[in-house]
Amino acid sequence: MFFTLRWHEGAVEFIDQRRLPHSIAIVRCESASAVAEAIRDLVVRGAPAIGCAAAYGYALAALAARHQPLPEFQQALREASAMLEASRPTAVNLAWALQRMARVAKESAATGNAPTGLAQQLLHEALAISAEDVSINRRLGEQGAALLPDPCRVLTHCNAGALATAGHGTALGIIRSAVEAGKRISVYADETRPVLQGARLTAWELMQSGIPVTLITDSAAGHLMAQGEIDAVIVGADRVAANGDVANKIGTYMVAVLARRHNIPFYVACPLSTLDSSTPTGRDIVIEERPAHEVTGDTTIRWAPEGVTVRNPAFDITPFDLVTALITEHGIWQPAP
Amino acid sequence: MFFTLRWHEGAVEFIDQRRLPHSIAIVRCESASAVAEAIRDLVVRGAPAIGCAAAYGYALAALAARHQPLPEFQQALREASAMLEASRPTAVNLAWALQRMARVAKESAATGNAPTGLAQQLLHEALAISAEDVSINRRLGEQGAALLPDPCRVLTHCNAGALATAGHGTALGIIRSAVEAGKRISVYADETRPVLQGARLTAWELMQSGIPVTLITDSAAGHLMAQGEIDAVIVGADRVAANGDVANKIGTYMVAVLARRHNIPFYVACPLSTLDSSTPTGRDIVIEERPAHEVTGDTTIRWAPEGVTVRNPAFDITPFDLVTALITEHGIWQPAP
Repeated sequence: MFFTLRWHEGAVEFIDQRRLPHSIAIVRCESASAVAEAIRDLVVRGAPAIGCAAAYGYALAALAARHQPLPEFQQALREASAMLEASRPTAVNLAWALQRMARVAKESAATGNAPTGLAQQLLHEALAISAEDVSINRRLGEQGAALLPDPCRVLTHCNAGALATAGHGTALGIIRSAVEAGKRISVYADETRPVLQGARLTAWELMQSGIPVTLITDSAAGHLMAQGEIDAVIVGADRVAANGDVANKIGTYMVAVLARRHNIPFYVACPLSTLDSSTPTGRDIVIEERPAHEVTGDTTIRWAPEGVTVRNPAFDITPFDLVTALITEHGIWQPAP
Repeated sequence: MFFTLRWHEGAVEFIDQRRLPHSIAIVRCESASAVAEAIRDLVVRGAPAIGCAAAYGYALAALAARHQPLPEFQQALREASAMLEASRPTAVNLAWALQRMARVAKESAATGNAPTGLAQQLLHEALAISAEDVSINRRLGEQGAALLPDPCRVLTHCNAGALATAGHGTALGIIRSAVEAGKRISVYADETRPVLQGARLTAWELMQSGIPVTLITDSAAGHLMAQGEIDAVIVGADRVAANGDVANKIGTYMVAVLARRHNIPFYVACPLSTLDSSTPTGRDIVIEERPAHEVTGDTTIRWAPEGVTVRNPAFDITPFDLVTALITEHGIWQPAP
């Protein structure tokens, strides 16, 4: 099986998600700035995976500065943290992981630890964040798997899989857990324009795991629901506001509205690290607008006219009242009836 | 300005829509079989444009056979008609135009006209069909334009423009008429996966006409509606059933469901030739499933994994109760309240 990210011989390594499914290439990052670049360039994506990556980036900054005096060491950590946090605006796990790393650094420094010891401790914390992510996803997966009928045809949007986490996945983790529990699950994967994470990643990841998957255009989801071919929708989340509103990949809201029309349960896989209790509602979440070239063509070709105006919001907001349940590692959260 | 199709020096000429927006190439067809090939290969597409093209193909067959005796001439027309009708068997306007041409041939032969005169008459009929298509679209456009506020931000899906007709367009004809009437119209064009007629054709066509257009992914439409950035939706139709249900490009249904949620008017431009009164409801319309390669990549690249299963329905059905009004050249048709 593939890995999404790992610590290996003094650096963090990522499977290069820009090159999947055609080639399996590894990107090795030996500095915090290299990690920030990998996040920005979508070598690694998915809110939980980005959190793990940022923690490793923070640890790399600590290791690089470990022979400096404490104030310079702490300044290096602050700079690395700011740079890593700016690499992707919407994913809350990024800030969550960096805050956790900073807290460890602060508390450990307060006990008199020197930079060399602090750096080791921060690396251990980054490793712990990744290990915890996998076990959180397994607990979340079991919660969600219990909600699915057998058999079940699940629609998913984007990739909230092992490739979006340190392993197992969130939305796809529920599917994996259901399959492990013996349920007959088949998946419809929205291709997820513009970056095609569904076509490139979800289809590949599920095929790797031997789980039946059918690729469709985003526009075909409504037709399949109308034909009675979808039993449940499961998606991930980039950020969940305090009122339960969900920020996730552009197009998630469309799927939620259609699922409601067809009385199909709409589940959001939401590790608690994705919950942003400091953001009151979905309206308070800033939606990242990404470059036009993602819409006007693909890596090697261009199909839209030269000079065309483009809007490319990367996320949308699904109001909590369209969500059947937010599935966390500690139980499920449902809107008031 | 561009033309979609025209009669020029003894042949029919098409702008090659397969090569837009990158190059403006003209395909010249001097025989009925060349026209059938152009229809089959998507040099020309869009139900009204295909009807006009077939009529020209029929006229070309008549001109080629005009020095033969009447029985051989009539046999040549029958053969050409069968070949043209088979070029896109699902297009309603194709059969409609060929039946009209055959009726003229039959009635004129009955009055004693010889093949040379008949051929001239059939060419005039083909020219009339194209001219009528433009005037129908202009009348339809005026009907629709009156419904739009000023200013108005219109979302459209696929291409129901001048490129889908002999000129002016149906959905985009409404927009053109509104602009001509002095209204400030801007357009959001869904890219329209999988064949990207919105990105390739609608964006190009509107830019050529100086009408402001912004290209978005199909998945972004819901987000823009939620943000209050869409005032009306206008789409075309491939076929409208007797109960008002609309078959149109895959994704139209999703847009209609979202428009209803946001109380945005959803208009369908529907020349009466698109109304199929012999089909009772949308459920009776067979949905064509097209090849997987349209979804797994584009002309020169492939992004999905080798061997992935694909579903590729080309159309979906929008129930009439989601339609604010069907706009025809003879007034508008609305669901009972």
